[in-house]
Amino acid sequence: MRVSIREVAPRDGLQNEEPVPTDAKVRLINELSETGVRRIEAVSFVHPRAIPQMADADEVWARVNRHPDIRYSALIPNTRGAQRALAAGFREIEVVVSASDTHNRRNLNRSTDESLDDIASLIPLIHEAGATVEVIVATSFGCPFEGDIDPDRVAGLVARVRGDGADRIAFGDTTGMATPRRVRDLLSAVRPDLLHFHNTRGTGLANILTALELGITEFDASVGGIGGCPYAPGASGNVATEEVVHMLHDMGIGTGIDLDRLISTAETAEKLLGRTLPSGVLRAGPRTRLV
Amino acid sequence: MRVSIREVAPRDGLQNEEPVPTDAKVRLINELSETGVRRIEAVSFVHPRAIPQMADADEVWARVNRHPDIRYSALIPNTRGAQRALAAGFREIEVVVSASDTHNRRNLNRSTDESLDDIASLIPLIHEAGATVEVIVATSFGCPFEGDIDPDRVAGLVARVRGDGADRIAFGDTTGMATPRRVRDLLSAVRPDLLHFHNTRGTGLANILTALELGITEFDASVGGIGGCPYAPGASGNVATEEVVHMLHDMGIGTGIDLDRLISTAETAEKLLGRTLPSGVLRAGPRTRLV
Repeated sequence: MRVSIREVAPRDGLQNEEPVPTDAKVRLINELSETGVRRIEAVSFVHPRAIPQMADADEVWARVNRHPDIRYSALIPNTRGAQRALAAGFREIEVVVSASDTHNRRNLNRSTDESLDDIASLIPLIHEAGATVEVIVATSFGCPFEGDIDPDRVAGLVARVRGDGADRIAFGDTTGMATPRRVRDLLSAVRPDLLHFHNTRGTGLANILTALELGITEFDASVGGIGGCPYAPGASGNVATEEVVHMLHDMGIGTGIDLDRLISTAETAEKLLGRTLPSGVLRAGPRTRLV
Repeated sequence: MRVSIREVAPRDGLQNEEPVPTDAKVRLINELSETGVRRIEAVSFVHPRAIPQMADADEVWARVNRHPDIRYSALIPNTRGAQRALAAGFREIEVVVSASDTHNRRNLNRSTDESLDDIASLIPLIHEAGATVEVIVATSFGCPFEGDIDPDRVAGLVARVRGDGADRIAFGDTTGMATPRRVRDLLSAVRPDLLHFHNTRGTGLANILTALELGITEFDASVGGIGGCPYAPGASGNVATEEVVHMLHDMGIGTGIDLDRLISTAETAEKLLGRTLPSGVLRAGPRTRLV
């Protein structure tokens, strides 16, 4: 069995941290590209006033050493972002819509239905340029404003965007409300291509374990657990890639990633960010590292 | 389905933290006793030179408000400790032996076989006083000096101590080397009554989930995740009780514990220890706590 990890620290991770210099972003992507990971979410093309952390996306992308075997992706919020991503040469584009209407309004300043209409008009534009579209359904496992999200609502959204031509679907556990029970509940209603968990409440690896049992083999993860959680100051955000890889390799599941290099990259990330990152495997090393 | 949690912060947790005043220990046990938890590892009776954190065990135990529905236990290292625990009125006594000979020598200054002989002579002494004996097999899932521990070796130890009259068996994941795969491997060779996991490498809840699937329903946990890990400075130690209870309740598994009171006790523990504790549910609150 193999699992495909998408490394999201350069975009989703850094977007939720204090801004770092362009050099640091380039170095992080370059080091990650040498770990054996085969997918990296590199940047987002958003308005710099909305997300200053990604203001230098074009420069970052122009300067990184692109590894020929790695699929790099970019997140975009609208037509302008899509045009920038396509002009920069990205062939995998991500867009977000929230399953929670309240969260979608807070995050994107419009209703879920309005975002779905936007996505429907973006998809052909992106396809015409020869790129693919992944729709990330945020708050799939619960919303910090609305609470539980009915799996049937998520299934309805998925049916809509698949009908509109989406190539891939990801479910985002935006504020760490997923649990093994919620993973089972949602996946029995509708299946994504990829899952994106946070470790806000300690359930990150338990959720991945549950999803593996249900046949999901694509996961997002962020080296060092980079990426805070805006609703829970001090809490960890994304699951740490090295914790995911450590557990998977111990289970005999391949990822193609060199764990030692990945941990070394987490150490680099910690220096670049200047804060202690929430990753046990970064602190303690793998279980095979003896005293 | 129900799970029985033993709260180990007062003993295993505090033993691995900077010493706190007697008042703080009494307050922690008293607050825990009001959360609905039905088992508490209260103190250990060890030589104060070996473990200064437990030097005031007699005074702590004399001063706590003992809840009539709670089973309190004490850890002891030898005959002298057993005598003190029995004189103090404990009816549940725990002893430790390490599955790893190297770890046993470092931790207890004798071989595993010598410790097994000691335990064999302690058991009748404790039984004669009307108390029960739990044998905790440390490093059951791996040793930081020796690496992997053969499940058959653990099974051999368990057969020996059961033959010598041990009432209960616990497996300790002493330095956080357990993973879902190691839980399956060990439990397919030999089954304990109770499991004690650390969250050193992020697998704590994934391990518990795996053990639940294999029919284990008794777990140790430490409020706030109190208890560092000596081999991994900065890493979390014991699984945090509120993270365990949060996941179990969401799965519809009862524990008898009031999660809000437990989180409030974790907040108290954080103040008493004066450091940020490694518990996501303490930081972020339960998933049901909306903005």
